[in-house]
Amino acid sequence: MDKDNQVIEQGTVVINKNKIVAVGGPELVSQYTAKKQLNVAGDIVMPGLINTHTHASMTVFRSLADDVPDRLHRYIFPLESKMVSRDMVRIGANLANVEMVKGGVTTYVDMYYFEDEVAKTVDKIGLRAILGESVIKFPVADAKNADEGINYAVNFIQQYKDHPRITPAFAPHAPYTNTTEHLQKIAKLSQELNVPVMIHLAETDREQEEIAKRTGGKSPVQYMADIGALNNKVIAAHAIMVDEKDLDLLKQYDVGVAHNISANTKSAKGVSPVTRMLEKGIRVGLGTDGPMSSNTLTTMNELNLVGKIHKLENKDRSAMPPITVVELATKGSAKAIHMEDKLGSLEVGKLADIIVVDTKSPNMVPMYSPYAALVYGANGSNVRHTIVDGNILMEERNVLTVDEKAIIKDAQQFADNVRQTVIASGESVK
Amino acid sequence: MDKDNQVIEQGTVVINKNKIVAVGGPELVSQYTAKKQLNVAGDIVMPGLINTHTHASMTVFRSLADDVPDRLHRYIFPLESKMVSRDMVRIGANLANVEMVKGGVTTYVDMYYFEDEVAKTVDKIGLRAILGESVIKFPVADAKNADEGINYAVNFIQQYKDHPRITPAFAPHAPYTNTTEHLQKIAKLSQELNVPVMIHLAETDREQEEIAKRTGGKSPVQYMADIGALNNKVIAAHAIMVDEKDLDLLKQYDVGVAHNISANTKSAKGVSPVTRMLEKGIRVGLGTDGPMSSNTLTTMNELNLVGKIHKLENKDRSAMPPITVVELATKGSAKAIHMEDKLGSLEVGKLADIIVVDTKSPNMVPMYSPYAALVYGANGSNVRHTIVDGNILMEERNVLTVDEKAIIKDAQQFADNVRQTVIASGESVK
Repeated sequence: MDKDNQVIEQGTVVINKNKIVAVGGPELVSQYTAKKQLNVAGDIVMPGLINTHTHASMTVFRSLADDVPDRLHRYIFPLESKMVSRDMVRIGANLANVEMVKGGVTTYVDMYYFEDEVAKTVDKIGLRAILGESVIKFPVADAKNADEGINYAVNFIQQYKDHPRITPAFAPHAPYTNTTEHLQKIAKLSQELNVPVMIHLAETDREQEEIAKRTGGKSPVQYMADIGALNNKVIAAHAIMVDEKDLDLLKQYDVGVAHNISANTKSAKGVSPVTRMLEKGIRVGLGTDGPMSSNTLTTMNELNLVGKIHKLENKDRSAMPPITVVELATKGSAKAIHMEDKLGSLEVGKLADIIVVDTKSPNMVPMYSPYAALVYGANGSNVRHTIVDGNILMEERNVLTVDEKAIIKDAQQFADNVRQTVIASGESVK
Repeated sequence: MDKDNQVIEQGTVVINKNKIVAVGGPELVSQYTAKKQLNVAGDIVMPGLINTHTHASMTVFRSLADDVPDRLHRYIFPLESKMVSRDMVRIGANLANVEMVKGGVTTYVDMYYFEDEVAKTVDKIGLRAILGESVIKFPVADAKNADEGINYAVNFIQQYKDHPRITPAFAPHAPYTNTTEHLQKIAKLSQELNVPVMIHLAETDREQEEIAKRTGGKSPVQYMADIGALNNKVIAAHAIMVDEKDLDLLKQYDVGVAHNISANTKSAKGVSPVTRMLEKGIRVGLGTDGPMSSNTLTTMNELNLVGKIHKLENKDRSAMPPITVVELATKGSAKAIHMEDKLGSLEVGKLADIIVVDTKSPNMVPMYSPYAALVYGANGSNVRHTIVDGNILMEERNVLTVDEKAIIKDAQQFADNVRQTVIASGESVK
């Protein structure tokens, strides 16, 4: 997975500090003296996965009330109004981080509350992340309204703007859950502060209806373009309900798109036209969405669905071939977050975010095509080593930088609390 | 997963020889003296998965030429004509068996050649299986024509008819790749010998066209009914291209259906109307299809796709809820193979085919619903222990009855042979 999608048999990757300094054959081994050498003969060495859309802290709610109709409004928002806190955000993010490291994700894009708490967990475990502080028009755990949300975000951005692995950002929840004025204010601030803006866009019927009402019939993408809120800072999650004109706007304004096949099919919302996006040269990558939606957090588990469902949608078994799926998860995702100059491929000068996938597990044997093996055969548990910014975060499936068992225990204890306060009362489904 | 789909917290299952003799709470522990006790506190104890359709030995070809249009006729049949042998069948089945045991499959349904070789591997590892010897009208590795195929099957059936875990069977490849006379002969023999018949049915455009030509416009299901080849011995794989009348016939003749969502979407053939089948009370379970088609062999990896794709197809997020998906993989699959009296649930008197799924892996934490955790969270690698016929085949992910490493090495060596003789020559894609 270099710029020409080369597969190097018996390849070698050399890292110095946090960068890749050489990629080549076995001859490189004798040309460098390594402090640490991972012998991964036969395995797949590839760029780390970039999860372009999630809500990491929601792991603590995973497997709660799946499949409730209109779940976001009927279940998730009420649940969050009761349960979100700094503690919950920290406990959930810790679990999510461990799951992502073990699943081969090296960079993730988050949208949630108390993002400064998420940032601390990301800093500790050693991941790379774009962390977006949510802005929404109704009261939430860390802000009474959108103005407070924007202030929270600005403070967070100022606190983390120089962090080597964390990019702080704005995360207006969606067009219909924010006013035009707030969306415009965020667009302006994001340019001034030079930070990304993540937003759920063209995802739901409700969004489409409310924006059409607000604008006299415009699509959410058209609306965002017309109010001046689409640009190359934007990472739009979902983009399911888009027509050709919307796609042209996404291309014109250089917007990144996070494609979340698991969440979009589980909620029966539909399939984003990703094959068409690729034809148009739109920046598109893969995301998992949050753990209440998908329900796992490595895009390794998405590859299979992306390959298969787009074939089904296109009624064409040659559509969305494995190499394209792996590109979406790596280079494509780097483009979607506008970081393709630093991430997404194994090339000299890029950041050393690298994973090693085991090929001796029965489901990976034999391997005529590494792309097909990854897309149709692998799951998150096949990731053997995970390296971020030149540091080994997981070696032989052992997470080195945090205490996995303690983190899982914390999450289980928090879940007991959820069981007592929410499930027992039966209140949260309205 | 008993007859009422109860979830027992802190449950206990007691096995004597090859049967379940008690299922209940922790009080059972003091009522029995166990030779061997597995402490699996917090984990999911459930019936073993039944893979209702595969071609196990094809593991040695996995990831070869995925996504070639009309792949069966253009690639797979030519490849098999060159490469299928007793050795290949043994090496491939060994690998498949290990993958299935590690993925929580305790019973599988196979259709291939040299099934007596497959039987030896199943006997050795300790799995349960229905093994169908293929019958097809053109020359294949173990038969010059369909008559020879039938003879091979009859000999195999006589050899294995009393095996405690192996049910020998006929496997006519499909309606269009067999003559009416041979399909009728197999139907008759299957009644006389009291063995199952597996067949690919209503799977492809080509099949539909050729059967319409043969019959003046009948559907494959209608044709099979009219020639007297549908009955309660039949396990039909796929059943994608079926209308209401076809579904009524499947119900009327008590046919079992193997639903293979991965293979059917990967080949862009479409989605079998399983929600409608369930409404009609048709016997339907889950299969993986062969490893060139799906590409992995545990239905644990199918649960996620089954849940999500049927929601998408039905445009309804409450369609195909997790409990229904888990039922399909266990009780439903037992019904599809007409073995619901012996398999598919944890109940006193049933055979002791049981798996334990780890719930402490990050992707399984927390677990508010074991059904949602299994369907949306788990993958094959989360299976911790596998028990078949009262014997532990895998404990803490170590396969106890065969040498996993040697089996994987054999498969990799066979793949080298394939690379040299098939890929290098470039001949096999016509």
